[in-house]
Amino acid sequence: MIADEIKLKIRDIVGSENVLDSNVDCFGYSYDSSFVPMSAENIPDLVVIPSTTKEVSAVMAIANQYGIPVTPRGTASGRTGGCIPIRGGISLALHRMTQIIELDERNMMITVEAGVRTIDVYNFCAEKGLFFPPDPASWKYSTIGGNVGENAGGMRAVKYGVTSNYVMGLEVVLADGSIINTGGKAIKNVTGYNLTQLFTGSEGTLGVITKAILRLIPMPKVRNTMQLMFPSLDNACNTIHKMLISGVVPAAAELMDKISLQAVAKHRKLDINPSIEACIVLEIDGETNEDLQEQAKKIQITANEFDVIEVRIAASQQEVDDIWAIRRGLSSAIGAMAPNRFGEDISVPRDAFPETVRLIRRIAEKNKLTIAVYGHAGDGNIHPSVLCDLSKPGEEQQVHDAIDEIFAAALSVGGTLSGEHGIGITKRPHIAKALGEAGVNTLKMVKQVFDPNGILNPGKIW
Amino acid sequence: MIADEIKLKIRDIVGSENVLDSNVDCFGYSYDSSFVPMSAENIPDLVVIPSTTKEVSAVMAIANQYGIPVTPRGTASGRTGGCIPIRGGISLALHRMTQIIELDERNMMITVEAGVRTIDVYNFCAEKGLFFPPDPASWKYSTIGGNVGENAGGMRAVKYGVTSNYVMGLEVVLADGSIINTGGKAIKNVTGYNLTQLFTGSEGTLGVITKAILRLIPMPKVRNTMQLMFPSLDNACNTIHKMLISGVVPAAAELMDKISLQAVAKHRKLDINPSIEACIVLEIDGETNEDLQEQAKKIQITANEFDVIEVRIAASQQEVDDIWAIRRGLSSAIGAMAPNRFGEDISVPRDAFPETVRLIRRIAEKNKLTIAVYGHAGDGNIHPSVLCDLSKPGEEQQVHDAIDEIFAAALSVGGTLSGEHGIGITKRPHIAKALGEAGVNTLKMVKQVFDPNGILNPGKIW
Repeated sequence: MIADEIKLKIRDIVGSENVLDSNVDCFGYSYDSSFVPMSAENIPDLVVIPSTTKEVSAVMAIANQYGIPVTPRGTASGRTGGCIPIRGGISLALHRMTQIIELDERNMMITVEAGVRTIDVYNFCAEKGLFFPPDPASWKYSTIGGNVGENAGGMRAVKYGVTSNYVMGLEVVLADGSIINTGGKAIKNVTGYNLTQLFTGSEGTLGVITKAILRLIPMPKVRNTMQLMFPSLDNACNTIHKMLISGVVPAAAELMDKISLQAVAKHRKLDINPSIEACIVLEIDGETNEDLQEQAKKIQITANEFDVIEVRIAASQQEVDDIWAIRRGLSSAIGAMAPNRFGEDISVPRDAFPETVRLIRRIAEKNKLTIAVYGHAGDGNIHPSVLCDLSKPGEEQQVHDAIDEIFAAALSVGGTLSGEHGIGITKRPHIAKALGEAGVNTLKMVKQVFDPNGILNPGKIW
Repeated sequence: MIADEIKLKIRDIVGSENVLDSNVDCFGYSYDSSFVPMSAENIPDLVVIPSTTKEVSAVMAIANQYGIPVTPRGTASGRTGGCIPIRGGISLALHRMTQIIELDERNMMITVEAGVRTIDVYNFCAEKGLFFPPDPASWKYSTIGGNVGENAGGMRAVKYGVTSNYVMGLEVVLADGSIINTGGKAIKNVTGYNLTQLFTGSEGTLGVITKAILRLIPMPKVRNTMQLMFPSLDNACNTIHKMLISGVVPAAAELMDKISLQAVAKHRKLDINPSIEACIVLEIDGETNEDLQEQAKKIQITANEFDVIEVRIAASQQEVDDIWAIRRGLSSAIGAMAPNRFGEDISVPRDAFPETVRLIRRIAEKNKLTIAVYGHAGDGNIHPSVLCDLSKPGEEQQVHDAIDEIFAAALSVGGTLSGEHGIGITKRPHIAKALGEAGVNTLKMVKQVFDPNGILNPGKIW
């Protein structure tokens, strides 16, 4: 509960219309796009929707003074409960901070407020021939603040890296309301510790990101799509390895296992050759069409070495769209296979992709569950989907056991709990297994520095 | 002074032959490659040369227990006094930790101990067709531990980034001797705060880096070198901008101003067209010779738009070597122009390169000094060399005034104090101007977490 006099102060800062406290309004800020079930316990006491950094700063100063939990929020597209206010307090919604402050074409950088949607950044830059590569699946609605806070990934990571690779500088409001700027437009910068990268991926627990300076690159002139079908998962992965080592780096290299493919086939009423065990979808890009043809040729030669069954090089935009429709429709196709579904986001050394999928197969068998696997094979980020029916007695426990085992499998091959979704609430119980007690203690000590009263997004990460 | 019983304990850990305490031995560890003058005050009490992480850990535990300062050291090639033990105590020299632990060709990563020289990493990988791009000027003798600790840059940063862009994971011995591992081989990894990037560039103040997992990329198949002469600095910089925005990204884009060129001309007895105000040396790389020719053609077209006076595309390895000899000989050519020389390392938004050089010209005039300017124009990292004769009365003060003004100039255009050398001792007085008091306090709080007794490289950064 937040006292009326405090609410009044906050209303004075951001305007009454930007402070919500009715139960029905607050309910809308109690969940995100994760599997965390809705609960009355997660309803914030107050929703505050500032429009400037100064307002964020003033709100934080009050929250800090009164020890009120603050959970920053973009558009709640997160997959691990990062913006769920599990300790009540303030849901600090930044979706009104949508200014594109500057596009600096000569330095190839853009400065934006936290609430700008990622796709809007992409489109704004694309009009000038500049490219902001990070493309998390949620990019049509997720915001830059959220993407930086979670260090969002996406399909293009194999060639272009993840969000953190594009963050040059940040404006951050600290727990006590003070405003700091990290980094800047100097490409090389070794003045002091790298706070920019410390805040990136800190899941709103160290400060509220209000602005970001993002690096851009020239937009590739041409793109095309290829689809390759393989008789085994190993052959598919070996093709990707050999391609990358030889210097052919696709802009995306997505892999689907047989269960995923079958889900798509069923959903879209397609016939798929039963000997196909794995499908790769590649995006290639470059400067000229000859360049693309050259890449496609090299990929085909490599794929042939690994007994590729079918190679499709898109000959039209329609064909590009058709191929990507399969990958994009994957999540709903898999979702349609069972009443419930838990999607995970482990990340392993690229080399360990097939071994990890095999381990997941065994986990599925042992727990009598179906687990579809797809992911970003070019960077080792795997999304296993555990399909289940929670209405069946005992199935929920089996699912949790399976997920525990999937995390253990990821760690056993030198991987990690999360490639791009963050830890949030859902992976919190596992973090000590990944980082060790000493590692988690180090994180806690860093947290203590930035947020001594523990008001920033409490209950997350550990 | 370190008590004999403590020395005995340390000798027990690393072996007597790896602990030096004679004055003459210790003197050799009292300076580095910076302008910090030699001083008896900088002589460590003890030089300890461990050969394993376990030994480093045991030494740190003792140092922490007794509050003994520890200054980690690679090969002392640093330019800002980072490894100078200004508070005495232990110089912890890691040059015996030279194991290349693993080259993982499939994941394109190498794991090495801190004392491995950067060029040895490069060569080891190059034999397998893999490329470790960071190339600080010191790379023939500097070590990976030092390069990571300082986040070293180099000429290839314009296309390939700096050391931090290749650090996937670290083994770090903390102040109390505990050993932590950060990051790993998973390319996407958002499990917990990014401690890997926090330690990278922390100048030995947060922990002792003992191992690094480094990312590699495929080695470009072909390279060539171009030299372009321009009638003005702006024209040279505009050429670089337009080239980068159009998607032609050279592996190196080095710029020399007229004073630097004249120094080289004098040193190497060359005739240089007096209308030349700036020279760019480019390295271009790619997959095929046609690819290089295409790049060279595009660069030439862009350069023509900006009235290039002379374009030289190397036609043989001899010509490549000749062109680079000019750039590589620059430092000594400039050094030969005056009895003393202070080299700096500011970094500015790439766009601000010509403006910054003009500001430096004015600073030179005002202080009646000659300042040669060269640098990595592709990334905005400028190395002004203040030429002087310290034996002249008052000149030392003028030099310091000029350097202060150079830092102020860098900050005034949105730049920073250091692009690749670090802060160390030499830039310490200026850090608050760059980061603000609040920023410096944040760094100090982070330092407090990792090193509560303040034993790790004390007296550096602030």
